[in-house]
Amino acid sequence: MSFEQVRHKPLIPLERERELVIACAPLRSNINLSRIVRSAGCMGVRKVIACGAARVIQKIARNSVDDGDAPGLVVAGDEPGVEIEIHRTLPPVLKELRAQGYQLVALEQTTNSTSIFDFPFERKTALIVGNERSGLDEEELRQVHRVVEIPMYGLPYALNVATATAMTIYEYCRQYPRG
Amino acid sequence: MSFEQVRHKPLIPLERERELVIACAPLRSNINLSRIVRSAGCMGVRKVIACGAARVIQKIARNSVDDGDAPGLVVAGDEPGVEIEIHRTLPPVLKELRAQGYQLVALEQTTNSTSIFDFPFERKTALIVGNERSGLDEEELRQVHRVVEIPMYGLPYALNVATATAMTIYEYCRQYPRG
Repeated sequence: MSFEQVRHKPLIPLERERELVIACAPLRSNINLSRIVRSAGCMGVRKVIACGAARVIQKIARNSVDDGDAPGLVVAGDEPGVEIEIHRTLPPVLKELRAQGYQLVALEQTTNSTSIFDFPFERKTALIVGNERSGLDEEELRQVHRVVEIPMYGLPYALNVATATAMTIYEYCRQYPRG
Repeated sequence: MSFEQVRHKPLIPLERERELVIACAPLRSNINLSRIVRSAGCMGVRKVIACGAARVIQKIARNSVDDGDAPGLVVAGDEPGVEIEIHRTLPPVLKELRAQGYQLVALEQTTNSTSIFDFPFERKTALIVGNERSGLDEEELRQVHRVVEIPMYGLPYALNVATATAMTIYEYCRQYPRG
């Protein structure tokens, strides 16, 4: 079989808007946050909620004409980008997402967590992502419905937060390839 | 259900060593290479082949006691790390991997590529990763057996190379959860 590079293939059309949102605890690194926003945008996710001193670096996220100094709804031309919502802390966000009917799924290693290989996502899911070092705290974990974890097989025993989030977004999209 | 953080859960044991290797064209960024090495290590992949002026930054890869200035077999204590092999260019590497019986699967957007959602990996797979900007060239694509691509749904229409590689490693491991 022969393979030739194709730059800018047409996007895969979604039959409905993605009902996955990502909500991040205050992260140490805006680079990680911005990488999450880039991955989310590529996979058709339309909203990322960040907390704390969060600022999306558009050179990394690349789904906006905004330069990241003025967070908010970001768009590039006619193409919808990723909406960024910034809050002071995560718990009120979780409460609100619950009220909106999302299944809250934390990405964390905990007791009673489920391997992501065995986890059927609900369509309307809020993926809850913890801090690089401290993860999600007790109060936050009390508010989620489920916890998924990515199996670890070797050193350094922990994925980068943006990488783990990207894998989880991938799995959700694999389960809902058309939205 | 209640969830409590568990730090350092036991690793998932593999029933056999992973037969997935990652081979990267010369990359622009050793940060991307090092992120690939970290993801590979976490998922139990034991070998990453890099080309060009590649140097693994151990502060990022974190699966070695090596500081990255002396690439080669890296180990931390008794735990096997990721073996890093550095070559000048990719084509001779592809030839050798083919001779060793690997199915060569490029990660790229090309004609005749298959969506990763529909791609059953062979156990013995070499995942071939292209440069951040230029991807894989004609000569390299001529040497691979198959090409997979990750569906794109939105801006910026292209995943970071380390993120795309991580998603692909994830998919392979999902298909072979025990090696």
